[in-house]
Amino acid sequence: MDEQPASADRRARPSGRDAKRAARAARAASSVPYITRAIPIFEVLGEEGLAIIERNADTILEEIGIVFRDDPEALQVWRDAGADVRGESVHFPRGMCRSIVQRSAPREFTQHARNPARSVHIGGRNTVFAPAYGSPFIHNLDEGRRYATIEDFRNFVKLAYMSNALHHSGGTICEPVDLPVNKRHLDMVYSHLKYSDKALMGSVTAPERAADSVEMARLAFGSELTDPLTGRPKTMLISLINVNSPLTYDATMLGALKVYARANQATIVTPFILSGAMSPVTVAGTAAQTLGEALAGMAFAQLINPGAPVVLGSFASSLSMQSGAPTFGTPEPALVLYTMSALARRLGVPFRSGGSLCAAKIPDAQAAFESAQTLLPTCLGGVNFVLHTAGWLEGGLAMGYEKFVMDVDQAGMMHTLLAGVDLSESGQAMDALREVGPGGHFLGCAHTQANFENAFYRSPIADNNSYEQWLAEGSLDLAQRANASWKRQLQEYVPPPLDPAVDEALLDFMRQRKDAFPDSNV
Amino acid sequence: MDEQPASADRRARPSGRDAKRAARAARAASSVPYITRAIPIFEVLGEEGLAIIERNADTILEEIGIVFRDDPEALQVWRDAGADVRGESVHFPRGMCRSIVQRSAPREFTQHARNPARSVHIGGRNTVFAPAYGSPFIHNLDEGRRYATIEDFRNFVKLAYMSNALHHSGGTICEPVDLPVNKRHLDMVYSHLKYSDKALMGSVTAPERAADSVEMARLAFGSELTDPLTGRPKTMLISLINVNSPLTYDATMLGALKVYARANQATIVTPFILSGAMSPVTVAGTAAQTLGEALAGMAFAQLINPGAPVVLGSFASSLSMQSGAPTFGTPEPALVLYTMSALARRLGVPFRSGGSLCAAKIPDAQAAFESAQTLLPTCLGGVNFVLHTAGWLEGGLAMGYEKFVMDVDQAGMMHTLLAGVDLSESGQAMDALREVGPGGHFLGCAHTQANFENAFYRSPIADNNSYEQWLAEGSLDLAQRANASWKRQLQEYVPPPLDPAVDEALLDFMRQRKDAFPDSNV
Repeated sequence: MDEQPASADRRARPSGRDAKRAARAARAASSVPYITRAIPIFEVLGEEGLAIIERNADTILEEIGIVFRDDPEALQVWRDAGADVRGESVHFPRGMCRSIVQRSAPREFTQHARNPARSVHIGGRNTVFAPAYGSPFIHNLDEGRRYATIEDFRNFVKLAYMSNALHHSGGTICEPVDLPVNKRHLDMVYSHLKYSDKALMGSVTAPERAADSVEMARLAFGSELTDPLTGRPKTMLISLINVNSPLTYDATMLGALKVYARANQATIVTPFILSGAMSPVTVAGTAAQTLGEALAGMAFAQLINPGAPVVLGSFASSLSMQSGAPTFGTPEPALVLYTMSALARRLGVPFRSGGSLCAAKIPDAQAAFESAQTLLPTCLGGVNFVLHTAGWLEGGLAMGYEKFVMDVDQAGMMHTLLAGVDLSESGQAMDALREVGPGGHFLGCAHTQANFENAFYRSPIADNNSYEQWLAEGSLDLAQRANASWKRQLQEYVPPPLDPAVDEALLDFMRQRKDAFPDSNV
Repeated sequence: MDEQPASADRRARPSGRDAKRAARAARAASSVPYITRAIPIFEVLGEEGLAIIERNADTILEEIGIVFRDDPEALQVWRDAGADVRGESVHFPRGMCRSIVQRSAPREFTQHARNPARSVHIGGRNTVFAPAYGSPFIHNLDEGRRYATIEDFRNFVKLAYMSNALHHSGGTICEPVDLPVNKRHLDMVYSHLKYSDKALMGSVTAPERAADSVEMARLAFGSELTDPLTGRPKTMLISLINVNSPLTYDATMLGALKVYARANQATIVTPFILSGAMSPVTVAGTAAQTLGEALAGMAFAQLINPGAPVVLGSFASSLSMQSGAPTFGTPEPALVLYTMSALARRLGVPFRSGGSLCAAKIPDAQAAFESAQTLLPTCLGGVNFVLHTAGWLEGGLAMGYEKFVMDVDQAGMMHTLLAGVDLSESGQAMDALREVGPGGHFLGCAHTQANFENAFYRSPIADNNSYEQWLAEGSLDLAQRANASWKRQLQEYVPPPLDPAVDEALLDFMRQRKDAFPDSNV
């Protein structure tokens, strides 16, 4: 009569339940190298709306132009391609960038992992989850917020490696600020290769660091450096090229982009936009600008090396117009995401956006609301490469240990959601309905007994018990349960196999590079 | 380079910011009587899948049948309509229930509020948000969890009245357990009519209590009891008729349904299902059963009074197969929701489902994740009437004060999301892009200055400030900020106008009814 499901029948709980819960959750989250969706992609705009935004992007590229700063080579490339270069400002005939991209950029591509079973396919109906990226701080319940170290970095690589819900090891999961700026990329790339066997991202903070990343990947992959399917160099790295929005590429990012493109490594060309600061305060304006900027960068990569994998990226949040602070999990960025995803599909390139973004400083309800309001649009909108899937706190300033565990749980649920509705005979379950009939109970019926183990997604950290039992177990909140989880996982970590000769080659390379020039924090 | 939006420009914060923030948030959440969506509805199944489920529902109705318990009149109604009645079990020729519903049930209808500006239109592209329903307990940060009282009930009616994001006053928001069971419905209906002017729900715990609800609504609406558009009695109440799943209607619910249908009041016929207990452990099986059960109940209402408004309801959660406890915010119920919503549209009746459901005992990150993973599917899936939009905790056992405030904030965001992308000239914002150009900043441009007030949804409780400022303000989490919010709102509450003669008539009626029989807790 009243809606009180908690009054439903309950069975006695099995003993040793924590162990069983963990084991079952592990089984339930089937270990797939990436998600291939079985449900449709959600669209917010139709043909007419998308065409308006494409037309506006072309107007931006033609009339307003894109600045390629401090990179004469880039300007010459554009001159040779037929663009109108005025100083550092490049103006593109309508449709030029689109046609360059569509001529050679792959619609989908494989990013190889050093463990081939973990290679990911980026594009199409696939979704790849990677951890958060770029935080100088970490946060956990024991220490609060402090600067991140290489030890934290290794911890997150290990946690991402152990998670069935994450498909990728990511890149600068957190900044190891205890290491010099000009050498820490070596330790980061090494940590990914050593403590995980999932695919990884390269450094983008300087062209020579990008080159180091490529070289270390080559050492890890050994002699198999050609993709047998494409005949091109294997794509072993995917790396994040952020645009200096509005409408500007700087020499650092262009330098890294060129290194990766020439080596046939993938780049994610991402206008990084806080609407109201780097773009207009509207969804349609932000989308047109994002598309224009990304088109110029992706086309540039294709001019450098036709066929090099590129991903259209969109990072868009809104400013609080009172305080100037970025906000997350609000509706406008979700609308940008759905719109940009559709534009990427029309263009014919993979799409990166979303994640589990939040402005919250701690893993509280704000963090959860904001993250869910980003991750679910990410998944329904058909994002192919999801940076920031797990750990993000405080607008990206902090990587949270408990937040990581909570986000991984949500990412696990997304596997089930994107698998859609089972319409097999067992999925239709008519036998169960016939067996039980009016007024009966389904717990004991044959169909339930045959299917209950994997019937529903099981969260390893959610508490669904009675109030009394929850009280008896210490009235813990989700963050406290997540705290116990990451500590247990780090204790249980077992590294993936790595050929000792490869390990030694990587260490040799790092030593040699570190000895080649003095430490610097620039 | 790294993704650290928090390093973006920030403006100095205005003083008196709390007051300004509240005022702006109030302005931003435009006060609409209900939402009319401008974005598409998300679908997970195509024609083929939906047809399979419809066929299975027909098989359930024909072969397995529905029990109408302890209600000889109902059995006679079905016999007269041509169904095959065996004992209390009714078997329906294929397509019979569907054709009865489609013959007379309105596709959409208006539920009138005593303030005509707040009447809601249920069905079509509209979404109506109502508070949670049915909790015996309340929860807040000051007192923890305790039994609810009529004072709590009044508080929640006031909070729902003050919220622009909620369109409806709801029904049994919490159980006033300090009042006798057989009379508390009078105080609940009176509280809705007295402390709010939004539309409300009637009692369903006994036919005579349903009749009391109708009578009190008539007193409140005065002489204008006929809908000028339809020529039928005004629909002033919408009430929740839960099916005793699997496949059983009991006399209590049938009694209330008959009272409301005869008075042309709306009923929400809702199979209340925890998959694994009351239905098979699959999405497709649960959907077929839900459709079959709801079809039988809605068809019954049409046989009682052709044209009486009915809503297809679906409440589906999954059992934890370890503990037997219900879980919320998991992917399977979202898939059921999308599926049932599509089936309701195919049938041609309004749809009720979703809300801000959670199993969490407290307003922590679990509560937020689970609620968001229910409310966003609710909105994307096109639910027309959303019970449990705000306040729900602990599987519906507790109504949370802080949870209410948090959920209302999320419901506010859904208004912006469902409004979609502004493609007007101002929405395209090409002037802003031309004015600012490469490397510029949009904060000061004319377009931003003209639009910043209402550019983005503004949460009144989210904290987007710097870590340092957040620390200085006491390191509050979202629940603590929500705690301050509901207390302030209750202090600021001003009741809507109510004709003193109407108030007196309502009080007279209540006195008379309360004096007519002794108190009872049955």
